[in-house]
Parts: sequence; C-alpha cells; structure tokens
Amino acid sequence: MNTHPIGIFDSGVGGLTVYQAFQSALPSENFLYLGDTARLPYGAKTPDTIMRYSLQAAAKLIEAGVKYLVIACNTATSSALEVLQQHYPDIPIVGVIEPGARAALSTSKEKRIAVIATAATVRARAYEKILSSIDAQVTVLTKPAPLLVALAEEGLITGEIPMQILHHYLDEWLNLPAAAMPETLILGCTHFPVLIPAIQQVVKGKMKIVDSACTVAKDAQRYFINNPHLANPGLHGTSQFWVTDGIERFLKVAHIFLKQNIDPDQIELVELC
Amino acid sequence: MNTHPIGIFDSGVGGLTVYQAFQSALPSENFLYLGDTARLPYGAKTPDTIMRYSLQAAAKLIEAGVKYLVIACNTATSSALEVLQQHYPDIPIVGVIEPGARAALSTSKEKRIAVIATAATVRARAYEKILSSIDAQVTVLTKPAPLLVALAEEGLITGEIPMQILHHYLDEWLNLPAAAMPETLILGCTHFPVLIPAIQQVVKGKMKIVDSACTVAKDAQRYFINNPHLANPGLHGTSQFWVTDGIERFLKVAHIFLKQNIDPDQIELVELC
Repeated sequence: MNTHPIGIFDSGVGGLTVYQAFQSALPSENFLYLGDTARLPYGAKTPDTIMRYSLQAAAKLIEAGVKYLVIACNTATSSALEVLQQHYPDIPIVGVIEPGARAALSTSKEKRIAVIATAATVRARAYEKILSSIDAQVTVLTKPAPLLVALAEEGLITGEIPMQILHHYLDEWLNLPAAAMPETLILGCTHFPVLIPAIQQVVKGKMKIVDSACTVAKDAQRYFINNPHLANPGLHGTSQFWVTDGIERFLKVAHIFLKQNIDPDQIELVELC
Repeated sequence: MNTHPIGIFDSGVGGLTVYQAFQSALPSENFLYLGDTARLPYGAKTPDTIMRYSLQAAAKLIEAGVKYLVIACNTATSSALEVLQQHYPDIPIVGVIEPGARAALSTSKEKRIAVIATAATVRARAYEKILSSIDAQVTVLTKPAPLLVALAEEGLITGEIPMQILHHYLDEWLNLPAAAMPETLILGCTHFPVLIPAIQQVVKGKMKIVDSACTVAKDAQRYFINNPHLANPGLHGTSQFWVTDGIERFLKVAHIFLKQNIDPDQIELVELC
C-alpha cells in the first residue's frame, strides 16, 4: 500500500484531459496536478527552455513525494521526457507520445498516420521518430495547429469558427485520394480532445481519431495491478491542483475541460524556479 | 547629443508595431527592443506576475543604458506602468494606453468608444479608467479578444477565418442602433494592428479604428524636439533586438509584423530573472 499521489504535469490546462482519464482508470489513487500556467503555452518555445521548465516542474512534484509521474503535455514529452527519466531513474516517468503512437498503429491497417500538434512537437519530429521506431513501414504526415490551443483555452469548441479552423488544417489531408489519405489522426496535443466533437464533424469518419489519454491511463492501471504494493487501496482518492499563476482562470478553463467544477480548496498557487 | 538607445519592451512580437512607428518618427535614434518571448503571452496572466516580469525587463533595459523606455504592450502597461515610473523616476517611461485613449477621444464626437484587448487589460479596466479620467462623459464598451493574438502570431490575417473571428467579437457592437453604436474602436493590444485590413472589412466604416502606436511615437518625437540634448543627431539609427527564447520564430513572426526581415546579426538571446 502506498498513498503517495500520482503526479501529472502540464504547461497549463491541456493535461486535464489526461488527468480525467487517470481518474476514471484509477479512482482510488490520489492525484497531484501541476499546471505551469504562468509560462504557458510551451508549444511555441524552444527545446532548451521547455526542458528547463520541465525539470523545475518535475523537481517540485518529486519533492512532494509523487510515486509515478505523467508528463501530460506532448511538447514537454518531446523535449524533456528522456532527460527526466535519466534524472530520476527511481520513479516511473511516462510521457504521452509513445502511448499515442502505439494506439494509432494498432488502428491503422495501411499504416498511414496523420498528426496535428504544437509547433514545438512537430519541429522535434517526435511522432515520426517513435512511430517509425515501432514500425518502419509507417507513413506519417504532421502539421502544427496552434490555433486549436487558443480555441480550446477560450472554450470556443462548437460552431462555425472551430469548424473553419479545423478545415483550414485538415482539408489538405481530407482531399487526398483514398489510397493516400491518412487512416488515423493523432491529436498530438493534450488540449485537442475537447475539440473531438467538432473534429468528428469535419473528418466525417474518413480518419479514426486517437488521443493518448486513455492509453497512458491504461498503462498506469496495468502498472499498479502488477505492483499492488505501490497502489492506494482506498475507495476514493483525492486530487490537488497546483498552478503557477491565475487560479481563477484555471478554474474557469478547467470547467471546459472537465465539465465539472474544481473546489477552490483543492487548488494552490506555487512557484517554479 | 545622446546616442543611447530608446528601449522598447513587449511580451513578444506585438510591440514591433510600436517599434515601427518609432522608427518612422525618429529615424536617427538607436533602438533596443526586448521581447519576453519565453514567457509570452502576458494577456492571460495575473497582474502580480505581469508586474514581476515587467520589472525584470525594465531592469535589463535600463542596465543597458536606454534613455527613454516604451512599454509597448497594453497588458504590461495596465499592470506595471505606474510601478515602473515610481521605480525609475529619472527616465521617461511611457505606456501605450493613455496615448490610445487620447487618440480615441479626439476622434469621437459622441464619446462612445469600444475597446478590444487581452483578458488582463479588460479585467484591469485600464481603458475605462483613463478615458473617464480625461472625459467623465465618455461611454466605454470593452471586450477581451484573445483569439486575435493567436491569429496575428500565426500570420493568419486575411481570408475567411480572421473575418469569422472578427465578426464573433464585433457583431454585437456593429448590430447596435446607430445612436448607441461606438464611434471609435481602440485596438487595445499591440498585436492587433496587423489585422487592420481585415478589421476595416468587417467594420465597413461604421467605427473609426485607433491604435496607439502613432500617438506614442509622436509624443516621443515631441519630447526629443523639446530636449535636443537627449536626441541622437546621426542620420540613420541602428536597431538591436533581444528575445528571451526562439530567435528563429521571432524572425519569422517579425516578418509578418514589419513586412521586412530583421538581420540575424541584430538579434540576441538574453535571460530575464
């Protein structure tokens, strides 16, 4: 038995889609979520800066005693996961890219996969590298889609504007001949799952939509089944949220992501440096 | 004669619209532009964090010997201008809000003024306070328009998407009866001037469009005419750019804002803390 929390780190609010999947998969666990809201978004920053910020965040969570650490941000995963794993070899540290890649490959018969993500994730060729290391036959198309982050943060997730912006990013792929069109679309940014209903309307079943949240959570579920001495046997775990700025805004945007309120008692301002 | 540079500070690239107005108005001056690109955008942060970051930026520029300091960001002006002026009483420090308010009042006969800005500027009631301190009879309507920042940064400034998003923000005002419709629209964020052609298409002459860049630059021109011993008498000044992250991205986005390239020799990575 181990009551220490599972740590989830994101640049801001996007990681809440991963938190939600974890809470469903592991309802008895305690969670400590850290959103670096003062410095978000990470998607337009360089790898060095993202790595520096991610190390600060991981240090904070590990100091607080987390027993398992999830980098719930594609951008931070692509720039910092390996360094974090080397830095803290005694704690399982997982990212969101490899599980998303695995999930996509398992649904793609023809191995044609498309990825939308932040500029930093696309520039790092994060998905190409992992997908082709799992299966050398894969074809990967990628595109940065930064406006989707702004839409998700604003909660502008239905209606004409998100549809137009999704067409702006996806039509190039949707207009390909059937034999060249990607079969699977990876949502390579944890902000994007709140836009799934709009994406489904635009994609019209032509591509399967994959986000990594469920796969990452299922991996963790398996880990705690295999390591029961590390699991929390309680009935209902608790959740605590740490942010580096703007509690009020976090609560508002969290409502868009979780479709439920976070109690102000659960949230606290912390400093990273 | 004083060859020290004029300092221009912004959270990122938006302040380049102000830099451009300064360069036209004072072509013989040297400029040192600082964009806090690692931590942009400021528009969604709290006043305390914005103040802390702005103090760090001002300290950096003043250490470098700037003789005049422009806070070329509405959000930083609203949260930090007064504190900066108190902190450095020996250097003229100007913001972009009061000049924009003055420019708007001078074009509004009926004194009905609308402002679009970042969430932080709107929340601080920055324009309402200054406009009503200049003229108690003024009516001010304000609205946060954060998606416009993302559009400007992406260079997505023509076509259907910016038009839709502008309608999303402005139709409420454009559909008011003529006697209630604002006469003047203040662009209360230094990112927005790159969208002026699209804004003009949406507004169709129903509101005058005001941004503060020209007014701030003209104020500075007057200052150096009245204080010729502080001006640089050379023919062509030089410009230097400091950013806290992502030189490559800054150069790309700067091209959207300036419609000309910045020489990579003119740009340098600096750290703020």
